[in-house]
Order: sequence, then structure tokens, then C-alpha cells
Amino acid sequence: MRSISQRPDLYCINTATLGFKTSLSEIIDECAKRGIAAISPWRKELEESRPQDILRKLKDCNMSISGLCRSTYYTAPNQTEREAAINDNRKALDLAAELECSCYVQVVGGLSGYSKDLEDARSQVKKGIQQLLEHSRQVGVRIALEPLHPMTTADRSCLSSLRQALDWCDELDPDGYYGLGVAVDVYHVWWDPDLYSQIKRAGKRILAFHASDWLVPTTDLVNDRGMPGDGVIDIPLIRSWVEEAGFNGLIELEIFSHNNWWNKKIASTLDVSIERMSKFC
Amino acid sequence: MRSISQRPDLYCINTATLGFKTSLSEIIDECAKRGIAAISPWRKELEESRPQDILRKLKDCNMSISGLCRSTYYTAPNQTEREAAINDNRKALDLAAELECSCYVQVVGGLSGYSKDLEDARSQVKKGIQQLLEHSRQVGVRIALEPLHPMTTADRSCLSSLRQALDWCDELDPDGYYGLGVAVDVYHVWWDPDLYSQIKRAGKRILAFHASDWLVPTTDLVNDRGMPGDGVIDIPLIRSWVEEAGFNGLIELEIFSHNNWWNKKIASTLDVSIERMSKFC
Repeated sequence: MRSISQRPDLYCINTATLGFKTSLSEIIDECAKRGIAAISPWRKELEESRPQDILRKLKDCNMSISGLCRSTYYTAPNQTEREAAINDNRKALDLAAELECSCYVQVVGGLSGYSKDLEDARSQVKKGIQQLLEHSRQVGVRIALEPLHPMTTADRSCLSSLRQALDWCDELDPDGYYGLGVAVDVYHVWWDPDLYSQIKRAGKRILAFHASDWLVPTTDLVNDRGMPGDGVIDIPLIRSWVEEAGFNGLIELEIFSHNNWWNKKIASTLDVSIERMSKFC
Repeated sequence: MRSISQRPDLYCINTATLGFKTSLSEIIDECAKRGIAAISPWRKELEESRPQDILRKLKDCNMSISGLCRSTYYTAPNQTEREAAINDNRKALDLAAELECSCYVQVVGGLSGYSKDLEDARSQVKKGIQQLLEHSRQVGVRIALEPLHPMTTADRSCLSSLRQALDWCDELDPDGYYGLGVAVDVYHVWWDPDLYSQIKRAGKRILAFHASDWLVPTTDLVNDRGMPGDGVIDIPLIRSWVEEAGFNGLIELEIFSHNNWWNKKIASTLDVSIERMSKFC
């Protein structure tokens, strides 16, 4: 297991952590000042700038983009909307390629409309992913399936466990030709009794490792994540498993925190982030 | 699959549904009036009455108790407290026997104190259950392991999936000598991609079937459950799987609803319960 203490060159900041209130350009400057290796931005943030300008700025700062966040939901009430989502995700793969992102992160969608048909939702997602694999290979951006916490199954992600994500990888890309893989976010998977065995099974399919902490009590199903050290997740243990499985990429901090971190100045959050990632990841 | 429409003789009301504001005696009267077969009460409610009085009243009403709720958490910061919890659960088994309950429902506890050691918490629970198996057999009350939703892993239940519950059954009671089994609560397990296979695997180990609905959005991790029909769970589908696996017991309604159902009069909640269980379970 790598020592990552005071190694911002091994850290990535998912821009969600900073509350979507600062331009990408300013975020890159603040991260560069601190020697942080990469960011994972959100597509909506990229609408404000030309991709080539962002890429140039990153290169000037010796930084890069890790994952591009995130897919348009694949689940929708009808075929027309599902096809529109796939087309949208195809364009996002092009954008990710232009930005030289290492992967395109998938949050796949939950039940659409008033549906109770979870099996159908899952089937919609698999069909959508399948239609993007060839394009993903062609543009050289790997698709990272991110299982989300089961508390988001209804409205955000019917992909609910690492086992399920790996089952989909095996089904859609059995020999790894398309590079289909997974993003392991400790917040979403830490509770899983099968986590060790599934991380081991994932092996080289692990394309990203995200950290944040589970607060007790948790007061919101989406926006109450904690900074590493403030909660109960044994992040170093899970990182050791991921690295044992072969992952040697960046450690990415991704915190949604409506009432706490998003209210702070980004310089302060970045300083605390480096300290906490050093100690608790 | 059984038809349960307008069959209150197949329904059980978990008294939590009624908000803990009415005496057991009054609850029994109101349920009896409507032909409901059974209740599942909480231990704290039984402290107000003598068990033999409750049992006599139930028999007079041609009713029974399904599961006794619920175990004292097995996880604790030290050995003394863990032993105290086991002793407490042993006494609860005696109470359940006196009340002729069909099972004793286990909510096992999460991480204790400031621990991040989830594996240790799970080991504490298994050791606790193991020490109660012989007593459970002797008094004739089966222990029902209830996996809770993964969003409760930190503070309520480190038993987080049906697969894990069945793994524990296989480990602690491989040949079924002690009658160790599981409670399947749709609210806790509906998201699980392996639900069908694990229910099939459970077979005769299924001791209880609990219903409520997942609301979108859900605003609280514990007390925002919905009445069947108000959310997105396909309860009849899961019931069909449970019955295909051999379960032919009561359908139990268990709703924690701080801001909605708990504010209503229990007569009204019971009337709506029968209607909704008829239509949506």
C-alpha cells in the first residue's frame, strides 16, 4: 500500500467538493498552488469555457482531469428519451476525449416516472451502456460504472452494488476489449459485506477511487457527506484492498455537503482536504 | 401466490406503525374489530402490562403475536456491555415464549462508540446470536435475523443484506437444528440486485415478511417510510418470491413515519392499512 501522506501529487479533487460556486479556472489555480495532481469536473462547469482552454490551463499547471462527471441518466419513461440520453452520453465521451480524461463516470439513473419496475430500469441502463462501448473504445475514454449507495436506488442509481457493476462488466465486456470498468466510492460501498471479495474480483477494472466519510447521524440522503476523519469509514482499509487489487491511480475526494463544506471558502476546504487525505485516506 | 385482498386474517400490524401512543390493550381491540390476525409489539410496550394479561386478551380476540420487536443491540464498546446485551436478549426470548410469539426479531446494532471496525462489529453480533441459539430452541422461539437497509449500517444494523443474513444462518445453524431464520422486510431489501436468488436460497428460513413503501424523495433515514402504494416498491412481486420460496405466514405492516402516519388517529391508520394491504401488497 502506498504512503499518500502529504502527497498532493496523488490527490484529485472532485469539483463537487467545492460546492459549484467557483469557476473551473479559479479551482485549477487553487489546486495547482497546492500541488494537487488533478480535478474531476462536472459537465455543467465545462459549459462556461472552451474545452481547449481548460486543457491548456491544466497542462500549464502540470495537472490533468481524472474522471468526467457524469452521465445523463439512462432510465427514462420512453424510447425517445432513452435514445436522447445515449446520444448525450456519446457527446460527453467526445468531450472527455478532448479533455484527455482518464474515464467517464456513470451515474445511471433510478426508476423513471412512476415506474416500480426495477428490473426494467436496470435493463434500460445496460442497453444504453452497451450502445456506447464501441464509441468509448474509439475515442479512448473508458466508461466507469459507479455503483451508488442503495439509498439512491429509486431516484439516482439502480446500479446499487459493486457486485452488480462487475456482473455488468462481465456481461457487456467479458474480455475487457472495451475497457469497461468501475469507480469505487467508499461512501457508496463501505457497508457491503462482500466488499473485499468484490474489490479483489474487480482487479484491473477499477478505474477510480473516491473518498469521503459517512457521518453519524446522516441527515440527508445525498448532500450530507463528511470530510475523511469526520465519520466511520475505514478509508485506508478499503484503499489497501483497492491497491492490492492493482489500482495505482489517484485518490479522489468527492464530498456533497450542503450545510457544511459547501458554505466554506474553497481555499480553506482545499487546505483541510490535503490534511485529511494525508491522515485519513 | 395467495390472494390477500380483504383478508385481514392474513395481516399483522407491527405496532410501530401506530406511533407508540396507544396502549397495547386498545390496539388489540381496534385490530380485533377489523379482523386483523396478529400484532407484532415492541418490548417497551409490554413493560406496562403483565404478559399473561396481554396473552389472555389476544386469545379472547382470537389474535396472536407474530414477532416480538426487537433485540437489544449486540454491538458494544466492551465485553461487559456485550454480555449484558446477550442476557437481556435471553430474557426477551423468555418473554416471547410466554407470549407464544412465533419469532424474536433481531436488529443487531451498528458500530459502537467511535469504532470504524465493521468486521469486528459483525463478529460481535455473530458471537451474541450463537450464545442464544440453544436457549431459543429450548423455549421454542425462533430467532429471526432482520437485515436492515445499508443506510443504517453505521448506527443500527451491521447486518446489511439478505445474503449476509443467510451466510450467518449457514454458519451458525447449518442444519437448521436451532430454527435460526430471517425476517424479509421489503423496505430494507427491495433495492438488492440479488434479492430473487437470495429469497429462493432462504426457503423455509423465512420467518417473517414485512411491508411498507419507499417514498421518493425520502427525507429521513429511519422515520420516513410510506404506506404501501405511496412509493416505488413492487411489494406483490417480492411477496410472490417469498411465497414461491415456501413462506405462508402473515403479511406484516411496519411503518415508521414521524411526520405523517404517526400523527393520525390509529383507527384511521388501521382502516387505510387494510385497504392498502389489500391493493398494494
